[in-house]
Amino acid sequence: MAKFEADLDLCFSALGDPTRRAILHRLARGPASVSELAGPHDMALPSFMGHLKKLEDAGLISSEKHGRTRICDMTPNAFTPARHWLSEQSAIWEGRLDRLDDYVTNLMKERNR
Amino acid sequence: MAKFEADLDLCFSALGDPTRRAILHRLARGPASVSELAGPHDMALPSFMGHLKKLEDAGLISSEKHGRTRICDMTPNAFTPARHWLSEQSAIWEGRLDRLDDYVTNLMKERNR
Repeated sequence: MAKFEADLDLCFSALGDPTRRAILHRLARGPASVSELAGPHDMALPSFMGHLKKLEDAGLISSEKHGRTRICDMTPNAFTPARHWLSEQSAIWEGRLDRLDDYVTNLMKERNR
Repeated sequence: MAKFEADLDLCFSALGDPTRRAILHRLARGPASVSELAGPHDMALPSFMGHLKKLEDAGLISSEKHGRTRICDMTPNAFTPARHWLSEQSAIWEGRLDRLDDYVTNLMKERNR
């Protein structure tokens, strides 16, 4: 459980930055080299590499050296834990609305009896 | 677009902390006072209030004063933008796998011809 929580910390924190989301959005379409990824971002390479490291530490991307080029790719099912957590909370919230709905319906029935 | 991106920054960053996720998990079940929310967390009140502020700034919760008690609640559809962003990237990623699948299937057909 602690491991799962720590993973969610890293994953959501990694997602909380527009450059990192743009990198993920690009990699969802297919693998890319570091220079290809860095191209659209007006940023010094060390800063950009810092973003890639955060994504890799969060398990959202992986990278591999091919000769002198480092190729990055999105991890399969990268977003599953985050999506699962969000759906779970939304389901609890919707359940609460359903219960409120039932309560009001019953109240109206009692009143009209 | 910039506003939407800034909102996602705040939302995902707010989710990247176990205390804040625990608060949201509790509030998904219904509104609660600040002291009720703080109860399970071994934390000084100012630090705890800092977490509530981050959630409120991210638009994930709202709070209202009732006499001397502050009552917090989850914002309706709080997670919709985050869930939408994640589904979108996952759909792009799955589309890429489908294309790869089609490519391999066609390659096999060509070979067996």
